[in-house]
Amino acid sequence: MSWLPTLPILDWGRRYDRATLVSDGVAALIVTIMLIPQSLAYALLAGLPAEVGLYASVAPLLLYALLGTSSALAVGPVAVASLMTATAIGGLGSSFAVGTPAYWQAAITLAFVSGLMLLAMGLFKLGFLANFLSHSVISGFISASALIIAASQMKTLMGVSASGHDLLELLTALVAQAPHTHLLTLGIGVAAMVWLFWTRRQLKPLLRRWGLGPLLADVVAKAGPVAAIAVTTGLTWALDWQQSGVKVVGSIPQGLPPLTLPSLDMALWRELAMPALLIGVVGFVESVSVGQTLAAKRRERITPDQELVALGASNVGAALTGGFPVTGGFSRSVVNFDAGARTPAAGVYTAVGILLASLLLTPALYFLPQATLAATIVVAVLSLVDLGILARTWAYSKADFAAVAATLLATLATGVETGLMVGVGVSLALHLWRSSRPHIAEVGLVPGTEHYRNVQRHAVRTSERLVSLRVDESLYFANARVLEDRINDAVAQHPAMVHLVLQCSAINDIDASALESLEAIAHRLKEAGIALSLSEVKGPVMDRLQTTHFLKDQVHSVHLTHHQAVMALAPETLG
Amino acid sequence: MSWLPTLPILDWGRRYDRATLVSDGVAALIVTIMLIPQSLAYALLAGLPAEVGLYASVAPLLLYALLGTSSALAVGPVAVASLMTATAIGGLGSSFAVGTPAYWQAAITLAFVSGLMLLAMGLFKLGFLANFLSHSVISGFISASALIIAASQMKTLMGVSASGHDLLELLTALVAQAPHTHLLTLGIGVAAMVWLFWTRRQLKPLLRRWGLGPLLADVVAKAGPVAAIAVTTGLTWALDWQQSGVKVVGSIPQGLPPLTLPSLDMALWRELAMPALLIGVVGFVESVSVGQTLAAKRRERITPDQELVALGASNVGAALTGGFPVTGGFSRSVVNFDAGARTPAAGVYTAVGILLASLLLTPALYFLPQATLAATIVVAVLSLVDLGILARTWAYSKADFAAVAATLLATLATGVETGLMVGVGVSLALHLWRSSRPHIAEVGLVPGTEHYRNVQRHAVRTSERLVSLRVDESLYFANARVLEDRINDAVAQHPAMVHLVLQCSAINDIDASALESLEAIAHRLKEAGIALSLSEVKGPVMDRLQTTHFLKDQVHSVHLTHHQAVMALAPETLG
Repeated sequence: MSWLPTLPILDWGRRYDRATLVSDGVAALIVTIMLIPQSLAYALLAGLPAEVGLYASVAPLLLYALLGTSSALAVGPVAVASLMTATAIGGLGSSFAVGTPAYWQAAITLAFVSGLMLLAMGLFKLGFLANFLSHSVISGFISASALIIAASQMKTLMGVSASGHDLLELLTALVAQAPHTHLLTLGIGVAAMVWLFWTRRQLKPLLRRWGLGPLLADVVAKAGPVAAIAVTTGLTWALDWQQSGVKVVGSIPQGLPPLTLPSLDMALWRELAMPALLIGVVGFVESVSVGQTLAAKRRERITPDQELVALGASNVGAALTGGFPVTGGFSRSVVNFDAGARTPAAGVYTAVGILLASLLLTPALYFLPQATLAATIVVAVLSLVDLGILARTWAYSKADFAAVAATLLATLATGVETGLMVGVGVSLALHLWRSSRPHIAEVGLVPGTEHYRNVQRHAVRTSERLVSLRVDESLYFANARVLEDRINDAVAQHPAMVHLVLQCSAINDIDASALESLEAIAHRLKEAGIALSLSEVKGPVMDRLQTTHFLKDQVHSVHLTHHQAVMALAPETLG
Repeated sequence: MSWLPTLPILDWGRRYDRATLVSDGVAALIVTIMLIPQSLAYALLAGLPAEVGLYASVAPLLLYALLGTSSALAVGPVAVASLMTATAIGGLGSSFAVGTPAYWQAAITLAFVSGLMLLAMGLFKLGFLANFLSHSVISGFISASALIIAASQMKTLMGVSASGHDLLELLTALVAQAPHTHLLTLGIGVAAMVWLFWTRRQLKPLLRRWGLGPLLADVVAKAGPVAAIAVTTGLTWALDWQQSGVKVVGSIPQGLPPLTLPSLDMALWRELAMPALLIGVVGFVESVSVGQTLAAKRRERITPDQELVALGASNVGAALTGGFPVTGGFSRSVVNFDAGARTPAAGVYTAVGILLASLLLTPALYFLPQATLAATIVVAVLSLVDLGILARTWAYSKADFAAVAATLLATLATGVETGLMVGVGVSLALHLWRSSRPHIAEVGLVPGTEHYRNVQRHAVRTSERLVSLRVDESLYFANARVLEDRINDAVAQHPAMVHLVLQCSAINDIDASALESLEAIAHRLKEAGIALSLSEVKGPVMDRLQTTHFLKDQVHSVHLTHHQAVMALAPETLG
């Protein structure tokens, strides 16, 4: 693989034919119908004018089609990144109030900085950094974010004002505002939600029973949100509900996405750096995980470092065309895949569809109630909540449970940024804690084999003169002292010991601090009349030890296999 | 070991006899002579009145004698903790200016908070946390701190004012002040330094050649700093150098250490929490390492968690008697040990000596030039600088070198607190980076044995039908994806493969994220017509896998030894 980013389009473009065009076109139609309300809704969630959602759905789709390696990933505004955008800009202070040009400019800058970071990670092959966001942390984070988003939409559904970036703030504000609930708005919102849940679960089977073909049934069912929008918009216009206090989307400028530039204020960049990184990395991890799931179904393969480049370019593209942070969406990608998208060209056709909508459709959305969009968001995000992960990790591993629970609670209690950092911190701390307490087992010979296992778990042969310890972890600064303690204990327990053999099959590395500990151990063993030997030292570890005083002067002998060590030093073990 | 702290004095006190009394007494005399100038000098380094150094040398010695497990550790003010104290209080703002009662009160509070933290770590057996401060980081940190301290003393030696908490600030200020150097002060300082270096290196051998007994030669040589103080004080008094502009220590209150209380201002505690933790942990790591080195020479054993209790109590004791943060000093402990201290009672006698000095000696120190104390500090700290660690770690491990170099440079460039945190951060990041890229080797049978080694390093037998991979690291979120990639590569390289066996001898843990990866791997292998088996799964890992869908439904077979797996699945490997 060359250092330069590749252009996957050169590969699939060559094989493009008419059947692929039809598949991609149908998928694009379905995704476009689904994306229009979602884009508007997520822009409002991010605190931006509704049309910004459409702007953010054009250039990113085109750039991802050019650079991405997944044939089905659909890029655009998503719920969690929109919430994180609102939190990031909300934290900048009063000169960035919602609705001001400064707020929009900050969102553009956030997308730009986030895009540059992803591009840099891709070009320098730093995609592995995303591995530190464990599956447990991501699960807890997404569920908590979805709950916060759902709570944040309640104010729009109730027709009141309330704000907050964590669950407690939001719920407190909502309870205080409950007496001022606007009942007509609430009615529209609840009706839309019920309709959306019903179309999502029941409409498609019903249409099939009524005799529609599977493809048509799918298109009609996916149009459920569009129908909700059309009906509530029509009623609001016809019955003049705006006069009764129902908040509507209002006038949306008609036209192409504008060309925009990010702010070049370095103080702003510095403030947005951490949110930009978090939004970028969370979006990348989600995209790659959706992309890999879909790719595996077709035995295709996606390249994480190339995905970083594609998502980075998509965000830079969003920033230059008036948009805000984007990433690969879960539900739209699955819809795209199920609807038959075969190549990234489906994304190009979707972009054209959105472009036509922003050119032609926006005047028709003047009377669209904001409560309808809030209902769209609530239904979309509730499918992201997976509290079952708590039970599953509890059953498998308490440490993973702790990471999930800490992320979930911290995100609910303190908002997305702190929550995510707490999650990463807790999962790393738990990993370090475990590796700082290495498992060290005394082993003996399994009769009839050349194999050595834990004396506490197997019936094995041992000798009083030779003690075998197997160290189940690489030795580094945080666990070297534990080895010293364990060996001191072994010396105290085995008064007849004259040989100590460390079975090093699980030691992949010995750092300089651990080497000092080994030297101290060897020195003390020598004074107690015990010779230290090593067995099954791995190649890379041996290469490094060759240069040391420890191996030359302090180790009695080194053996290829543990059995050879025992046969040479204490043959009586064989019986 | 019980949960309650133990009282080591109950053990050694019972065996105390006359010979031990003499040994301890002589050691105490030598250490007292050494400690008086050091204590005064380190108090000035911490920005405190000189007598505070004496106060901090009494109660801590008594409490450590009661609670500590090392027979030779001498506790009191030390150079690095004094520098860290000055940095911590210097960062509190203008209401804590040097020389004010608020500054002293903050130092007392710092010792108190640091002591409470150490006590808590000891009582909750959290001593293992200190293991995360690797030897490489500590080495780089101590060397850099010593250079900063030496630079900070230059202003006193030159008789000018200059301040700063990192090397660049200090050197810039010194260069600016160089034209105002007070030549008489500089002359006193340089003469004292030359004398001190000479007595440290050459005086004792010379005295032995002159026929003095080894003990007397030692006492006289250790009195070098006292002689420097006596001579420069006498000259300053006789020649009225104070009138010529030589700064002197001035009047030191005569009397017992005062009883003091820490501030109970919680805002101050919060600001001092991080410095208190760093001072406590650095002091603990240094103390334990000195204590263990000395204990090993006598085949004694020190208990790290009990040391935390002892050092914590010493710092609380310092805080209640007008002192500032203390810990076990390297040079004074070595001197104590070499001079024959056999039990912690030597510390009690030293405390009595310091107490007598603070009662009787302080008026005689009025004309002591500050430059003499600065010379004492420079000579003491330069012995802590060990830049050879850079060459040694470079030869052994580039990662350790990076940790040392990062700590050294960050400490020199940004001061002690940031430097230490950078060091810990870099060493943890390097560890995580390495463990996120596990070594995975394809292995084959070593002919004539039942042992399997890396095909790239050994002449081994393999089969086209069965591929054996040995994973050299526990599987967790940060490295699970690497395993997926490596297995995909192996599948591509071996078209005839029908069995893949993972040799799990080095896998000590599989977390929930890694389990998901294994499930994905097994799923993909199955679709490619390859059966996944495991060998040499460790007991604790097997216990956990037993509960999973992965082991029940996706794994073809599990074998006790890798050889058994190969014999069962591909016996042709044996030839």
